[in-house]
Amino acid sequence: MTEAPLVAGVELGGTKCICILARGPDAIEDRVQLPTTRPEETLSAIEAVLDRWRGFSALGIASFGPVSIDPHAHDYGHITSTPKPGWANQDVGERLRRFAGVPTGFHTDVVGAALAEARWGAAKGLEDIAYATVGTGIGVGLIAGGRPVDGLTHSEFGHLRPVRFPGDDWIGSCPFHGACLEGLAAGPALKARTGVSGDQWAADDPAWDMVAHALGQLLHALVLTGVPRRIVMGGGVMVGTDHLFPRVRAAMTKSLGGYVALPEVADADTFVVPPALGGNAGPLGAIVLGAQALEAQLQASFTTR
Amino acid sequence: MTEAPLVAGVELGGTKCICILARGPDAIEDRVQLPTTRPEETLSAIEAVLDRWRGFSALGIASFGPVSIDPHAHDYGHITSTPKPGWANQDVGERLRRFAGVPTGFHTDVVGAALAEARWGAAKGLEDIAYATVGTGIGVGLIAGGRPVDGLTHSEFGHLRPVRFPGDDWIGSCPFHGACLEGLAAGPALKARTGVSGDQWAADDPAWDMVAHALGQLLHALVLTGVPRRIVMGGGVMVGTDHLFPRVRAAMTKSLGGYVALPEVADADTFVVPPALGGNAGPLGAIVLGAQALEAQLQASFTTR
Repeated sequence: MTEAPLVAGVELGGTKCICILARGPDAIEDRVQLPTTRPEETLSAIEAVLDRWRGFSALGIASFGPVSIDPHAHDYGHITSTPKPGWANQDVGERLRRFAGVPTGFHTDVVGAALAEARWGAAKGLEDIAYATVGTGIGVGLIAGGRPVDGLTHSEFGHLRPVRFPGDDWIGSCPFHGACLEGLAAGPALKARTGVSGDQWAADDPAWDMVAHALGQLLHALVLTGVPRRIVMGGGVMVGTDHLFPRVRAAMTKSLGGYVALPEVADADTFVVPPALGGNAGPLGAIVLGAQALEAQLQASFTTR
Repeated sequence: MTEAPLVAGVELGGTKCICILARGPDAIEDRVQLPTTRPEETLSAIEAVLDRWRGFSALGIASFGPVSIDPHAHDYGHITSTPKPGWANQDVGERLRRFAGVPTGFHTDVVGAALAEARWGAAKGLEDIAYATVGTGIGVGLIAGGRPVDGLTHSEFGHLRPVRFPGDDWIGSCPFHGACLEGLAAGPALKARTGVSGDQWAADDPAWDMVAHALGQLLHALVLTGVPRRIVMGGGVMVGTDHLFPRVRAAMTKSLGGYVALPEVADADTFVVPPALGGNAGPLGAIVLGAQALEAQLQASFTTR
C-alpha cells in the first residue's frame, strides 16, 4: 500500500482556526491553533504557518459557512453571508490555493468532518453517511456514494422546519425561521428558551423533551432523504450530554413509525453514534478535502493523457 | 456525434406498465402499454414484448416502490414492501435482466423521471435537480452531480413531517405518519380530508391553502437538502391544477424567509416548473437508466483493459 500523501489542512472556525500537517489521524506532523480575528490578520497568520511547512502535496480547507463551493462561480472559495464582522464575501479558498500552489480542496467544516469520520472515524468504511453537529448552529455534512450531496450550494439541514412537539408553541430563536431545527435545538435556542445555558439544565428538565423531539425530526429527515448508513452526531449540545443520545434515538424511531424497515436503522444504537475523532474531526476533514483534490488532479491528468 | 444506443425501457407502475423501445424522446420505435395485474402475468407479458424487439443494447426498469436498489443486496431488483397483492418481495429487475441478457439499470419511477427531465426535459442540461410527483403518493427523485442521491435505499421525501399550517390539526391520512407530506397533500389525503376528490375542489376552496403549505414545505426541504438547480413537479394533483403552482411557489418563498439567497431560487417561476416530457417522463426515465447501465459497463471494461 502506498503511503498516504502529506497534506496541509486548515479548519477555519468562527472563533478559532486549526492548521494541521498530516497524512491521517496516526501521522500528524504538526498542529497549530490560531484565533479567528479579522480576515487579513487571520489569513496572513495561516499563510505564515503554510510558509513554514515543507513537502505537502495538497491543501484542504474546511470552513465555517455559508461558503461558495461551485468551482465555476466567480466567488468560489468565498464565505458568502455571515454576521461575523469583515468575513462576508471574503475570499478564503482561492487566496490560500494561490499561496500554497498545490491542488486545493474547499468545502464546509461539516462536510469535512463527515468525510473524516467516514475515512477514519465512527463511520469508517461507509460511503453513505451523515455528520450532524449541534452546537452554536446545526449543520449536516451528507455524503452519498462517497461524495458530498451538493447542488446550487451546500445543504442547510439545520433550517428545516420540523413538526412541533405537542403543545410547544415557543417561537424559536432563528432570525430567519423562528422554530426551525436550529431555532429549537442549537445551543443559543436552549439559552433563549429558558434563559439558562443548556449545559446547566438538569437531565430531567422537561425542556430536553422538546430538544430531543426536534433532533429526532432531524434524524427522521436524514433517514428519508440521504438514507445514510450511519449518522454521526457531534457538537457542543451533544458532546457531554450523555442522556441526549438515547432520547434522540428514541424520538427518531417513534417518528419513523416503522417506515424504512431496515435492520441498520432499527438498531438505533449503532445507527446514531458520537464522533470517533473528537476535536480532530474538523482538521482531519481538511486533510481529506486536500487528498481528494490531489486524487482528482491525478485522475484528470490520467484521463487526458 | 455518435447515435444514442437503442434501449428497451419498462416503466412499471401500480396500475399500468409502459414498455418503450427508444434512443430518446425523438426516436421512439415502439411503445406498448400493459395493465399491471398479478406479477407472473405482468412480467410474462413484458417478456413477450422484449422478446419481439430486436437490436436493443440495454434495458432500463423504472419501478413503483419501495424497491431494493443496492446491487450487492440479496434482494436487488425486488419490490420490497407494498400493499399491492402479490408484489411484495417480488423480483422484477434481476428476472428481466436475465431474460434480456443485456446491461440493465433499475431504480424507482421517480428517479427515472428525474433523469429523463434532466436529460431531455424541463431541467435539460442541469446536473442537480429534483423531480417531485404529487399523485396517489408523493415521491421525489433527487439527482446531485448527475447521480441519484441514494444510501441504504432510495429517498422517501413524501414521508417528511412538515410544520403544520397554522390552526390545521387534521390528523392526516398516512397509515405510518398521519400528517406527513403524503398524508396531507397526496391525492388520497385531499379526498380523506374533505370527502371530495381534489379534482372536484373549487380553486378558492380554503383547503388548497393547506395543500399548498405542505407542498411549500416539501420545496423548502428540497432547497435545504439537495439544493437542486431546478425542481420539476408533476403527478395527478399538480397536473391540471394550474392555480396550484403559483401557490406552492409562494409558500416556498415565504417559508425560506430569504435564507439561501440565490437568484436561481428567488426566480421561483423558473425554479419550480411542470414536467416537459408529460406522460413519457417515466418510460424515458427507463431509457436513461438503461443507457447509464450500458455506459457503466463500457466504462468498467475500459478501466480493466
